[in-house]
Amino acid sequence: MEFAVSFDDITAAAKRIEGLAVETPLLENALLNERVGGRVLLKAETLQRVGAFKFRGAYNRLSELSDEEKKKGVVAWSSGNHAQGVAAAAGLLGIEATIIMPEDSPKIKVDNTKAYGATIRFYDRYTESREEIGYQMSRDTGATLVPSYDDPYIIAGQGTTGLELVAQAEAKGVDLDAVFVPCGGGGLTSGTSMAVRTQKPDTKFYAVEPEDFDDTARSFASGNQEKIDPTKKSICDSLLSPYPGELTLPIMRKYVDEVLTISDDEARAAVKYAWEKLKLVVEPGGAAGLAAVLAGKIDCKGKTIAVILSGGNVDAAMFEECLRS
Amino acid sequence: MEFAVSFDDITAAAKRIEGLAVETPLLENALLNERVGGRVLLKAETLQRVGAFKFRGAYNRLSELSDEEKKKGVVAWSSGNHAQGVAAAAGLLGIEATIIMPEDSPKIKVDNTKAYGATIRFYDRYTESREEIGYQMSRDTGATLVPSYDDPYIIAGQGTTGLELVAQAEAKGVDLDAVFVPCGGGGLTSGTSMAVRTQKPDTKFYAVEPEDFDDTARSFASGNQEKIDPTKKSICDSLLSPYPGELTLPIMRKYVDEVLTISDDEARAAVKYAWEKLKLVVEPGGAAGLAAVLAGKIDCKGKTIAVILSGGNVDAAMFEECLRS
Repeated sequence: MEFAVSFDDITAAAKRIEGLAVETPLLENALLNERVGGRVLLKAETLQRVGAFKFRGAYNRLSELSDEEKKKGVVAWSSGNHAQGVAAAAGLLGIEATIIMPEDSPKIKVDNTKAYGATIRFYDRYTESREEIGYQMSRDTGATLVPSYDDPYIIAGQGTTGLELVAQAEAKGVDLDAVFVPCGGGGLTSGTSMAVRTQKPDTKFYAVEPEDFDDTARSFASGNQEKIDPTKKSICDSLLSPYPGELTLPIMRKYVDEVLTISDDEARAAVKYAWEKLKLVVEPGGAAGLAAVLAGKIDCKGKTIAVILSGGNVDAAMFEECLRS
Repeated sequence: MEFAVSFDDITAAAKRIEGLAVETPLLENALLNERVGGRVLLKAETLQRVGAFKFRGAYNRLSELSDEEKKKGVVAWSSGNHAQGVAAAAGLLGIEATIIMPEDSPKIKVDNTKAYGATIRFYDRYTESREEIGYQMSRDTGATLVPSYDDPYIIAGQGTTGLELVAQAEAKGVDLDAVFVPCGGGGLTSGTSMAVRTQKPDTKFYAVEPEDFDDTARSFASGNQEKIDPTKKSICDSLLSPYPGELTLPIMRKYVDEVLTISDDEARAAVKYAWEKLKLVVEPGGAAGLAAVLAGKIDCKGKTIAVILSGGNVDAAMFEECLRS
């Protein structure tokens, strides 16, 4: 089957972002190993530029725009991490960026997006369509739309996380039994699962969703792009995309073994654990993979696994709520 | 001049702790670089086993005890990080450890020390002498006292942080203009300054103390072991040792260029900055070096510097106080 992205696209993306994206460390913690009864390697994308993996895809997309496209600027919608990724990449490349953000985005994500130099257009998550606003803006100004996950360059860029993971695990002399990745629209999951399993077909790959946002799990079962119930809420604001992408879904169906779900309480516990034991700041959605491992969704005893901590942009109020859980 | 520790002792310590201590990553953050106007490399000892550099010295000390000494156990006093370091090292080596801790130690440090398998003896910081309790216990049981800083093995172990820092900076092709290190009794400062400046004599070395605990600064001026005023308080609980060590002070006087001081407000701001921008959990004392840099105590514009984040063990209440500052 032909996908929108190939393994070569991911290695090409890695060359484009080299020296600009952080090669995030693969960390290990004795207490976590003991708790899991195995060996857990943490790919800390929280330490990526903008505090989340999103810079990888955004820079890969924006750097490949033509000079004319660059002049006309870019527009994107995002609750926060993609917003910051696009804003930071645009800033580095001298491109004007407008970001369409829900009014209830975490303040830290809004502030940072502004700080990277982007213009923000707020919308009401329940009464307005971010897509309509974005398409209209693009028609009016000629700005290029930068999707948050359903785009070949975005997927390839996020996939570089998986390339680094495999190389870093090899450098440690480790064979990974499994990888756990937080899953929203599937940009990180599709790119990273392709990067890992093309090289390591025997490594199990698990995507992790919030329990009321199990659109990917249900899409795996039905084969269609299943949508979430728009009235549902979760503290995992970075994983609330309405359905898996047209491009990401087929890739995930090939390379992902199983889609797991976690509750908000399990996300809170993982954020607290990361703070207390790992000394890392992780946002609820970014901790979904860790939450699944800590909650024992898959038995990892005696296994060597990797967990991607995908982002760390969280408001103080939510962080304190997690510490008190 | 002959010191209690030589550079060779530090390289020997590095061999002993290899594979047990974490080779902590040297991190970099674009926002911090921009703020400082230079390049800042962060040696994240927060990610060390026990969440602080203290494991290095403790393991180096305990692993060199004779079999007979090991059987009789060890005793140490500490407000928390040395406690955890000794407890964890003792656990790995099958040695019984008793830790004398002040009743007002951060709860996280008490809980972790217990979790590593040590026995805790609490004392009142204002009415009891931890030294007396420790010496008495050692006389009664034959247990070896493990000082928190004034011991050649402890100093050499902490110095391995500096060895790693120099090697990691070289691997990045970087020449360090300066290093900033939090300073309590001087174990980390003396060992690390010797490790760095023996190899890189032109690198400036700054120790950073809380402003009412400037015993090292005053001892530099007078040449004697100056004591702190025991009625003073600071949120930097890991830097409150009463005076610089007999062994650490002469080493620091040779290798440290200047001792800087920071206020509690500056420490709080650094903890918050590390949470918000760096996505790292750092305790107030562990953030002293970062606090000095963020507060502009030394102009770092155009410079490449390293900051040691020495520990991340902080209670939720104190952490929340910092986030609200």
